[in-house]
Amino acid sequence: MIVDNLAPPYYAVIFSTISSENSDGYLEAAQRMEILAKQQKGFLGIESARADIGITVSYWQTLTDISAWKNNVEHTAVRELGREKWYKKYQLRICKVERAYGFEN
Amino acid sequence: MIVDNLAPPYYAVIFSTISSENSDGYLEAAQRMEILAKQQKGFLGIESARADIGITVSYWQTLTDISAWKNNVEHTAVRELGREKWYKKYQLRICKVERAYGFEN
Repeated sequence: MIVDNLAPPYYAVIFSTISSENSDGYLEAAQRMEILAKQQKGFLGIESARADIGITVSYWQTLTDISAWKNNVEHTAVRELGREKWYKKYQLRICKVERAYGFEN
Repeated sequence: MIVDNLAPPYYAVIFSTISSENSDGYLEAAQRMEILAKQQKGFLGIESARADIGITVSYWQTLTDISAWKNNVEHTAVRELGREKWYKKYQLRICKVERAYGFEN
């Protein structure tokens, strides 16, 4: 699903990943993290697509909300697993969404 | 490929799409736009993944560079085709990348 109808300014976390060959437990953890993220204060939405690389973008009201989610205990534990097992490489970017345009047929 | 080693601040354009059922000419146009984008002033990199939705993130030095790319004649023509043919819905967000973290095993 696409996240639309949000009014800037708000924040985006762009999480770009290259998977390792070990996907044991990955799907369950990813689904759990999505459920947990949606329960956090300031969460606005999430978009995800995976092909050669994975791109997940989550949207948040404030930088403080992003920090709180980063420091969530369960999220921190899963992030460690991600580094140990599932990801060969990743890049995480914290961005301020300044403008947005939608189109729908 | 993941884009890494860029020093914030810089800009990201997050282009999230839902495709229509008409994909005639889409792949050729997408490839051409990527080649053309790479030739533009201020272009820093591009990441793309497609599953249920498509997410393409392009990175740019300044907002002026993003405007110039938006106004590129060939890009404008292809954007019109996208609205007419290839996309059921899309959302485009212009963001300032404030912080970035990388990980590599």
